[in-house]
Amino acid sequence: MSLVESAAQFATHPFVSPYTFEPVQACDAVRGSVELDLSLRHAGRRKLHIGYEVVGPADAPAVLVAGGISADRHVVSSAAFPQPGWWQAQAQTFDTTSLRVIAIDWIGADGALDAPIDSADQADAIAGVLDALGVRTLAAFVGCSYGAMVGLQFAANHGDRVRQLVAISGAHRAHPYASAWRALQRKIVALGQLQCAEDQGLSLARQLAILSYRTPQEFAERFAAAAVIDGPRARCASEDYLDACGSRFVERFDATAYTRLSESIDLHAVDATRIGVPTVVVAIEEDLLVPVADAYALVEQVRADTQVRVLRSKYGHDAFLKEADAIASILRPTLIDCCGEVA
Amino acid sequence: MSLVESAAQFATHPFVSPYTFEPVQACDAVRGSVELDLSLRHAGRRKLHIGYEVVGPADAPAVLVAGGISADRHVVSSAAFPQPGWWQAQAQTFDTTSLRVIAIDWIGADGALDAPIDSADQADAIAGVLDALGVRTLAAFVGCSYGAMVGLQFAANHGDRVRQLVAISGAHRAHPYASAWRALQRKIVALGQLQCAEDQGLSLARQLAILSYRTPQEFAERFAAAAVIDGPRARCASEDYLDACGSRFVERFDATAYTRLSESIDLHAVDATRIGVPTVVVAIEEDLLVPVADAYALVEQVRADTQVRVLRSKYGHDAFLKEADAIASILRPTLIDCCGEVA
Repeated sequence: MSLVESAAQFATHPFVSPYTFEPVQACDAVRGSVELDLSLRHAGRRKLHIGYEVVGPADAPAVLVAGGISADRHVVSSAAFPQPGWWQAQAQTFDTTSLRVIAIDWIGADGALDAPIDSADQADAIAGVLDALGVRTLAAFVGCSYGAMVGLQFAANHGDRVRQLVAISGAHRAHPYASAWRALQRKIVALGQLQCAEDQGLSLARQLAILSYRTPQEFAERFAAAAVIDGPRARCASEDYLDACGSRFVERFDATAYTRLSESIDLHAVDATRIGVPTVVVAIEEDLLVPVADAYALVEQVRADTQVRVLRSKYGHDAFLKEADAIASILRPTLIDCCGEVA
Repeated sequence: MSLVESAAQFATHPFVSPYTFEPVQACDAVRGSVELDLSLRHAGRRKLHIGYEVVGPADAPAVLVAGGISADRHVVSSAAFPQPGWWQAQAQTFDTTSLRVIAIDWIGADGALDAPIDSADQADAIAGVLDALGVRTLAAFVGCSYGAMVGLQFAANHGDRVRQLVAISGAHRAHPYASAWRALQRKIVALGQLQCAEDQGLSLARQLAILSYRTPQEFAERFAAAAVIDGPRARCASEDYLDACGSRFVERFDATAYTRLSESIDLHAVDATRIGVPTVVVAIEEDLLVPVADAYALVEQVRADTQVRVLRSKYGHDAFLKEADAIASILRPTLIDCCGEVA
């Protein structure tokens, strides 16, 4: 069932874990792919290959980590896969000598599935990967942005398989304003596709997304106010930065994947009264996509211990990537609580 | 110099003006066009035809009214031009039996000038129109959005010709975040133009602008959260509304005009220490384009009596169009003060 692409044994060395307070041996890392036969909510029955990465000892508490729609299974670097992961800033928090970090590539991320995808489908895919890995119960599910939405679906639909949920910058619903913002991004991609300018459309959509991930405060600090005349046009100070963001994204992402995962955020809706898993919700005051009010509305419905932690950050929705210390200060004690118990 | 396109004498009737507290006669309305030889800041010397509309008695205090980049010379309805104007909601405030309301069509609005346009150029055009009309001094300049930027330029460069400025939702600079938002709109227009899909590009750019004119709060009240499956795609609740906004705009606006006027906002920069005209600045707490902090920064520089009035509105930048009563409650006493004196 599990096709191992690559694996590595690390050199072992003594290490004091912040979670178990015991010396442990350094661990191995595995990337693989699982073929799953899934009943998708909108796309019907499909055979899909789900890529995963596991880092950490087999007997350590398992923590599923999930990020935004452009994140992947490579969360933090390891000896086997030394390139920085998408959440490298939390490498110390997700200490893979004492935790087993599991992550997947999203359904649809390869651009092969051109159909609506539900956040609940992603939660089912995670459950299937855990089956393949022989992991019955997660000590914690830590999700950010889209990953938080999937985490809520996992808690609602596979609640007996997770002891603690941390949902950062994601709620039980997509906010209507944020949805409108994404709908326009998808229309820009579609305009590009229709006009044989797929890369330009995808780049522009990404640039628009970047605006929604950041804040006016950050732009005011970084960029001059007045545009300058550049040939026949006016050019704003932030355009070089946005162009570069768009170009980098086009190199690594596919227009169909972007469209379907963006849609998936807007299709997201979970009845949080079905969640009985202890949940920490982290919201950012300046987040233009997920208002703090939605975090409170979410925890009022969850039928277990809940906490809302509100941070302030000029990085808005991107705070989970940029505010490493503030996020770590919430994650570390939460992981010590739930992973110490399982270890 | 002035080419009168149409004019009308109204039926007269007694009326008590809120500004003069005296019965006055109903007035006439004139539309015309002035040919001006202007030295544009970025586009050099040009002969331009500037359309104007004047409503109200020739001997009444003159008030220049200017709106956003898509507004025009038709501010409020009159017997001669009975269709609703772009600021019809303030028809009672701009009582044209006791005020003479003057407005222009922006340089560039006809799409004929494909070159960078400065907000100071617009102020010069207004001065030229006033010359043609024989108006030496305005009792007030009331500008909203781009019109506020032009009003600040008029006060800085033609300060001896205006006694009171009211700048609503516009400041001495474009905010870097708002500029990035507009730069993306222009890139969408350019993508459409390059790909023979000019209407689609312009429609999408307008839809993106609409998002910036409104707020998450308003969208949350109006539109459902979850998208629905609509054929092969997910469709968000706000998409019908946004599509309609885009389509209406394409019918009445030109891609070149949009690009050049949008650029003009981002080229705007005025040294407010050059302004010696009493100024009321109106800012909206929820405005995503013009933060309240910029309103305060502006009045700190103006060398005359200033006031900042901060309103709260779920309509954000569009509050000047949607919050008729709150805006009127600021405009009316201001106009009574400065027009009573001139009348």
